[in-house]
Amino acid sequence: MELCSDQKRGDQHSVGQVGYTLYYWPIPFRGEFVCAVLALAGQDYDEPGFDDVSAVKLLEPDAQPAPFMAPPVLVDHDADLTLAQMPAILRYLAAKHDLMPETAKDAALTDKLVQDANDVLDELTLFGGRSMWTLGEWESFVEERLPRWMAIFEQTLASQNVTAETGYLFRRDTPGLADVTVAILWGVMTSKLDGYAPLLLRHAPQVAGFAQRVLALKPLSRVRKERDARFGDQYCGGQIEASIRDMLARHGI
Amino acid sequence: MELCSDQKRGDQHSVGQVGYTLYYWPIPFRGEFVCAVLALAGQDYDEPGFDDVSAVKLLEPDAQPAPFMAPPVLVDHDADLTLAQMPAILRYLAAKHDLMPETAKDAALTDKLVQDANDVLDELTLFGGRSMWTLGEWESFVEERLPRWMAIFEQTLASQNVTAETGYLFRRDTPGLADVTVAILWGVMTSKLDGYAPLLLRHAPQVAGFAQRVLALKPLSRVRKERDARFGDQYCGGQIEASIRDMLARHGI
Repeated sequence: MELCSDQKRGDQHSVGQVGYTLYYWPIPFRGEFVCAVLALAGQDYDEPGFDDVSAVKLLEPDAQPAPFMAPPVLVDHDADLTLAQMPAILRYLAAKHDLMPETAKDAALTDKLVQDANDVLDELTLFGGRSMWTLGEWESFVEERLPRWMAIFEQTLASQNVTAETGYLFRRDTPGLADVTVAILWGVMTSKLDGYAPLLLRHAPQVAGFAQRVLALKPLSRVRKERDARFGDQYCGGQIEASIRDMLARHGI
Repeated sequence: MELCSDQKRGDQHSVGQVGYTLYYWPIPFRGEFVCAVLALAGQDYDEPGFDDVSAVKLLEPDAQPAPFMAPPVLVDHDADLTLAQMPAILRYLAAKHDLMPETAKDAALTDKLVQDANDVLDELTLFGGRSMWTLGEWESFVEERLPRWMAIFEQTLASQNVTAETGYLFRRDTPGLADVTVAILWGVMTSKLDGYAPLLLRHAPQVAGFAQRVLALKPLSRVRKERDARFGDQYCGGQIEASIRDMLARHGI
């Protein structure tokens, strides 16, 4: 199957000759990082609708344009590249559009931060909703594991002398992949599921402020407005979002 | 806490002036990929013992040499870099020691393959043993999800004209990060947990042969011999390994 050739385009983001196509579900979760990096890079993209994403996901690997398990999948039309896996997509885009740090060491620390973000998304959703939250697991998560993740990000900012007010990660004066990743992870999570916001303020106050500062950058604030209008309060979607909201409502943090 | 300064070195791999220190549990699981890449790159490293790994993992993030959640953690002494997250470590080492492909596109596909491997390890162990296998989950995994992962890797080889007998991924004549990743993932898994071997042969026969060919490369075969002698049949360790072995013994595949 060819992606993006004369297919129906459901709730696509834009029409016409664009450089990229992003296959992802209509929720502001893993795909949101890709949209934000594309926005910071000033790149247009289109987004096929749910049915097209679902159809290509369900194909046998040897019938897919490139074999993959799950969205997000990015097509770079000029490069003739179809790429799955959020961290691989982010790294590719960041390298191509000058959003990576200069040194190998800082690039590695950026990769590590993206992996951390990917892990947080997994843990928050019990690995894509493979099971639903129970009170015991919830308490252990919001009392131990999630605060530790928050502290890891807080300490990462501190190690780079980045605060809520000043600086960017690994590139000092210029926002890049690491900054977008932090901002989307914690900023979108705490705006869609605001029960998490006090926890972030307690364990990672600099991260909380930094995320808002980065999200206020013009290209990101524009894309957030569009997507907030499109998705409303939805976050990771499905039963697992309902399970998180249920825990937040009944047990809090 | 400084890593590796005059600490006790339990079952360390070697003593003296080495370029790297690898913190990981004494099992041939995620850390095994790092060891194999270091071996292919001809780099010496030492490995602190269980107690040291455990001690540094349990520190508060702001007391760790670099904030992290879990091993593997690699220290590059010359670069003064402490780096967690297996895919970030592999990418850093591969870039430094000329194990990445030449083009941005092939580098991205290598990153994607490493992420796939990381996901397979997660799914195989129910995300680090967060729960134990039940018959229902086991059947769905070995009948659907795991065969699909195998088919994804098989198709990745096919797309590069790589077979059990000839070629390497994204670099044609020279083994690199992608090859090592495939070989360790499927080769070590099916040798330690040989109940999986027939499934791999059925769904990814080229991958099965390719993994053996890569593991037979001199630097890798040397390191595998050492580590097989050290770890025996152990794989991911702990209760989750017992749970996998129980499922393989009672229900098979």
